[in-house]
Amino acid sequence: MIGNTVKEFFLENEENYLIHSDNVATLTDTNNLEHALLVLTNIGYSKIPVVNKEEELVGLVSLSNVVSEMFGTESFNPERLATVQVGDVMEEDIKTIQQPFNIEKILNLLVDTNFIPVVGEQDRFQGIVTRKEILKSVNHLAHELELKYDVTAKEYVEESN
Amino acid sequence: MIGNTVKEFFLENEENYLIHSDNVATLTDTNNLEHALLVLTNIGYSKIPVVNKEEELVGLVSLSNVVSEMFGTESFNPERLATVQVGDVMEEDIKTIQQPFNIEKILNLLVDTNFIPVVGEQDRFQGIVTRKEILKSVNHLAHELELKYDVTAKEYVEESN
Repeated sequence: MIGNTVKEFFLENEENYLIHSDNVATLTDTNNLEHALLVLTNIGYSKIPVVNKEEELVGLVSLSNVVSEMFGTESFNPERLATVQVGDVMEEDIKTIQQPFNIEKILNLLVDTNFIPVVGEQDRFQGIVTRKEILKSVNHLAHELELKYDVTAKEYVEESN
Repeated sequence: MIGNTVKEFFLENEENYLIHSDNVATLTDTNNLEHALLVLTNIGYSKIPVVNKEEELVGLVSLSNVVSEMFGTESFNPERLATVQVGDVMEEDIKTIQQPFNIEKILNLLVDTNFIPVVGEQDRFQGIVTRKEILKSVNHLAHELELKYDVTAKEYVEESN
């Protein structure tokens, strides 16, 4: 459980947490890897969400996924890029969250990933929550907490616990 | 300024912040891009530090830097990978930190980057501090702060400030 004051600090910035799908670069599962390579080298993000034609989130794909495929056979084979689809190389086992946000879950998931996809009903892709936005809130909390609150040690808590 | 209690929470885990250079995948500025591509696709990190022969940190290189070079000329030219060096495509304008760590600076820099290189004298590469380790501390703080401390609003602070 996260304490109420700490939670409030995170909730102050909550409206900025969702980077809306309109502003997130994505690929479609039927895009070929030539297109994927172009997008992934140009946007400056190493991994992005993959949606299907119904705009449901179906996976994540990284530049590494694409390049590995290119070198995956015995010989270097760039022609493969035109015939293999994003859906064939993407990572499908992904963790997602829904709104309203649970700060505790977000903080926990972001230890291991740079962003968390947000989905609505029927896995409809809504956007992402990033480490960047959460770390802005952490900076805010770190700087403001003790300016706005008196923080005093409780008497009956043993240090070792 | 970060308050003392918040700072203490971060310092509790400080010994784990430095991932020592022995445990960080790096490339040398004279490695060719063929080698760089192999390393970057295999390690699962999209960007890693570059050192020179004196083990000084000289830059960062990403899979995107390498792939862009391969497609950089008019035509797709994988042969270039054998002749171009990491030092030719790496990012050289990088922010570093030194020990002892300044938590405020670390929190601030990690808003915009996944890891911060740590250097010693003469830019000798010592390791990295990652968002992952800092976010572990954030989780710890979020869960423990109000269990261990009474947090009460100060009386004379106006909300709007």
